[in-house]
Amino acid sequence: MSARGRFVTLEGGEGAGKSTQLKRLAEALRARGLEVVETREPGGSPGAEAIRALLLQGEEDKWTPEAEALLFAAARADHVAKTIKPALARGAWVLSDRFVDSSIAYQGGAGGLGKGAIRALHDFGSRGFLPDRTILLTLPAEAAAARAKARDNGATDRIGARDEAYHATVASTFAGLAEEESERFRIVDASGSIDEVAASTLAAIEDLL
Amino acid sequence: MSARGRFVTLEGGEGAGKSTQLKRLAEALRARGLEVVETREPGGSPGAEAIRALLLQGEEDKWTPEAEALLFAAARADHVAKTIKPALARGAWVLSDRFVDSSIAYQGGAGGLGKGAIRALHDFGSRGFLPDRTILLTLPAEAAAARAKARDNGATDRIGARDEAYHATVASTFAGLAEEESERFRIVDASGSIDEVAASTLAAIEDLL
Repeated sequence: MSARGRFVTLEGGEGAGKSTQLKRLAEALRARGLEVVETREPGGSPGAEAIRALLLQGEEDKWTPEAEALLFAAARADHVAKTIKPALARGAWVLSDRFVDSSIAYQGGAGGLGKGAIRALHDFGSRGFLPDRTILLTLPAEAAAARAKARDNGATDRIGARDEAYHATVASTFAGLAEEESERFRIVDASGSIDEVAASTLAAIEDLL
Repeated sequence: MSARGRFVTLEGGEGAGKSTQLKRLAEALRARGLEVVETREPGGSPGAEAIRALLLQGEEDKWTPEAEALLFAAARADHVAKTIKPALARGAWVLSDRFVDSSIAYQGGAGGLGKGAIRALHDFGSRGFLPDRTILLTLPAEAAAARAKARDNGATDRIGARDEAYHATVASTFAGLAEEESERFRIVDASGSIDEVAASTLAAIEDLL
């Protein structure tokens, strides 16, 4: 077991299979004798989960976009300080379903606050702490919509024109981040079977083992 | 009544009499036929009060200093958007017990995060929105300690050496802000009687009427 654990995040749009793949990757790492902490954002520590409740409950316009971004950054600062760094320090691997790149893609890119502003909040809140590896699960827009449709049990009317443009901007922002930080990112095609994607995901962290 | 209301904040250390003077100032303005909204930070809107509860409950080390500053900025963004700006838009005066200068003095100055970092969070969250007038109530350190002692019913053992240094840095940071922004700030000596200080406070906003 390595002296210091590794921090791996899974990113991507809705329906890309992040939570399924996170569980599979955790199983594969545990089979190799590693301690693995599975976590997610927003949340992942008691303080961050309390902030998550504030973020997710209530009306659509409950928070201004800026207040929401500050709350995400506060939750992430707590998640990093109370869950992620202590686990890494004792040699565990930490796998997180979403991290700062989601804030950059959703609130910075699609939400219009700008990538730089979201990065600046992360620099302040968590001293710019970044994963050792970020796996971006990508899916063609039609495939993502079909999976979302299946999950929502046919309630497709919620996916309107505005949502498509929004999700397209999320996807293009993620793609831009992966290009800018090609050392940290690995892009995994999520359109195959669960087993196929799990094999690609494991291959994408192989060099860290 | 003016078309747009005025935003006045009261700042200063513990025991300076901010809440007492805020009530007196509100009474004086209402006696002139003005609509006055009395508010306070952290809090002042439903979302900000929910964040206040997260900030004030729990253990001393519940939040990292950075997470705490992000939560204060999020609460302030909500307070400005949901309470302060709507009140000003309808012509009301808004009086707030503490605002961004408290974050700058306590977390930026005494807490060591830096004045610039706290200002940057305010620039992001509330587009740098500032009061029309800020009244800084000042008290010599010994007088402030004596009032705090009276309020705490004699439990002076909580005021140790570290607290004195901390509160001295708060006071000097406030004084520095008042010097840098002499147009916005007015310093009021809070060591007189309540009536005397109320008269000085009213005089300090007279030009805005």
